Amino acid sequence: MTAYVMGHFIPDADSICGAISLAYLKNQIGEDATPVRLGEPNPETKYALEKFGVELPELRTEFAGEDIYIVDHSDRELAPKDLDEANLKGIVDHHKLGDITTNAPLECWIRPVGCSNTIIKEMFDFYNVEIPASIAGLMLTAILVDTVIFKSPTCTPVDIKAVEELAPIAGIEDYKGYALELFKVKSAVEGTPVRELVKRDFKDFDMNGNKVGIGQLEVVDLSIFDSIKDDLAADIAALKEEGNRHSVLLLLTDIMKEGSELIAISDDASIIEKAYDKSLDNGRVWLDGVLSRKKQVVPPLQKAFS
Amino acid sequence: MTAYVMGHFIPDADSICGAISLAYLKNQIGEDATPVRLGEPNPETKYALEKFGVELPELRTEFAGEDIYIVDHSDRELAPKDLDEANLKGIVDHHKLGDITTNAPLECWIRPVGCSNTIIKEMFDFYNVEIPASIAGLMLTAILVDTVIFKSPTCTPVDIKAVEELAPIAGIEDYKGYALELFKVKSAVEGTPVRELVKRDFKDFDMNGNKVGIGQLEVVDLSIFDSIKDDLAADIAALKEEGNRHSVLLLLTDIMKEGSELIAISDDASIIEKAYDKSLDNGRVWLDGVLSRKKQVVPPLQKAFS
Repeated sequence: MTAYVMGHFIPDADSICGAISLAYLKNQIGEDATPVRLGEPNPETKYALEKFGVELPELRTEFAGEDIYIVDHSDRELAPKDLDEANLKGIVDHHKLGDITTNAPLECWIRPVGCSNTIIKEMFDFYNVEIPASIAGLMLTAILVDTVIFKSPTCTPVDIKAVEELAPIAGIEDYKGYALELFKVKSAVEGTPVRELVKRDFKDFDMNGNKVGIGQLEVVDLSIFDSIKDDLAADIAALKEEGNRHSVLLLLTDIMKEGSELIAISDDASIIEKAYDKSLDNGRVWLDGVLSRKKQVVPPLQKAFS
Repeated sequence: MTAYVMGHFIPDADSICGAISLAYLKNQIGEDATPVRLGEPNPETKYALEKFGVELPELRTEFAGEDIYIVDHSDRELAPKDLDEANLKGIVDHHKLGDITTNAPLECWIRPVGCSNTIIKEMFDFYNVEIPASIAGLMLTAILVDTVIFKSPTCTPVDIKAVEELAPIAGIEDYKGYALELFKVKSAVEGTPVRELVKRDFKDFDMNGNKVGIGQLEVVDLSIFDSIKDDLAADIAALKEEGNRHSVLLLLTDIMKEGSELIAISDDASIIEKAYDKSLDNGRVWLDGVLSRKKQVVPPLQKAFS
């Protein structure tokens, strides 16, 4: 019986590359495993899969009675709906510990590093398994994107070491150049429907009983949003109503200027102002130095809600 | 600032030895750490501490504002009451994933092996840190007790390998002989109040909203309970009332015969009978081959409750 390996809903590069790299590792150490995905890949993931010649994993969202591994989260909100009917054998993650529980012992490789694929790199080393060029390329991609080319405060020396070891295996001489290619693909907004942009990297969080959605778009130059900023604001207002959310936040992150413009809509904006110690102006504010949703946006908001 | 390292309430050998061995490892890799305990040590733990000349960690139960590491569980029920006011930096555990959540990323070393100290042994290897004889002795003790000298179904090849590597470091030539010494100490019931026996290794579980307490006493010969079995039954009935529990189970485990006598008191005994597919006779039944609360007693009961 194969074990399905998956990231989270609305998969990012770490989710899809992590499913592929962890499944490959499991197969090498004698466990039958198959990577799957819970949604459509984003542009930079498609770009990397094509570049390294790796097939997109199949879409699959039902796992009752199956063995599964989860990558890049430990939250029910982001996991398959039938999680409790599946046999969760393991979690590889780099986020806060979520609300997933199990009825049987499992393996968890959870570390406070910048990317799940950094942990999977450590697992390859732990099991002494060689990494093929194509898998190394995908892992490298995920780490470069998740750490915003090492600029994110979530980035650790372990992430940098992993990239420096993976790049030559993947045949990438100039990994910073490759990373900029990735972020240019990621930045492309022209001709993309606004809703698709807002949901490209969007997660719901439970904050003291309130549903809070937080999306993030990372670009190399914020000015590309100038003409659509009002449309983005209107769309997150619609998302708030459709999902009965308390608040929806959208981060427009400029990885070169190293900060984010926050656009927010909320039943109680004072909680958001309290969280970041800033006044919103027409629901917007520049957060200097803020690059990481996980480390700089979620924890203060969680605290402000509690 | 030091990080406090602790096991669970009603600490067993794995909890106390694990707090000591993990704190030692953290200190060696440059993190200030201090082992503490959440309760009184059991007889075999005291025996091992004395044998290997290690001081009993201090009792401490309040951790607001402190950095902490938790060993041997991931359940709020077994953790400090002020867990959410502490900064949980990591978990080392070998049980099912419990209901602890965090607001920030952390490290989790969770594996489906027989003992937390087996995982800590892997951590020593991962960080390439030498284990002193006294620490090796405590780790060895925890693994031998938790795996019931390798007889428990929770025992894995990784546990056996860890014991075989730790024994020579600890200067224990005949580790099976040492294990029998430990279980003789563990078996001593003479002169011990019944309540102390029942609570010696007692854990509460949340089973679909019901509070269920399960105690276990492991001995080398079950006949030592013959004269006090009725007192034990009366005491778990009292415990059930005092704690508003749905059920209380006590396992009298014979590690030589490899099975357990179950004594149970419940608001609905049919759930227990369904879980183990056995009829209770005067609230008692022999469960052949059942040595592990975690692997053989909790999961079927959890299933019967759900």
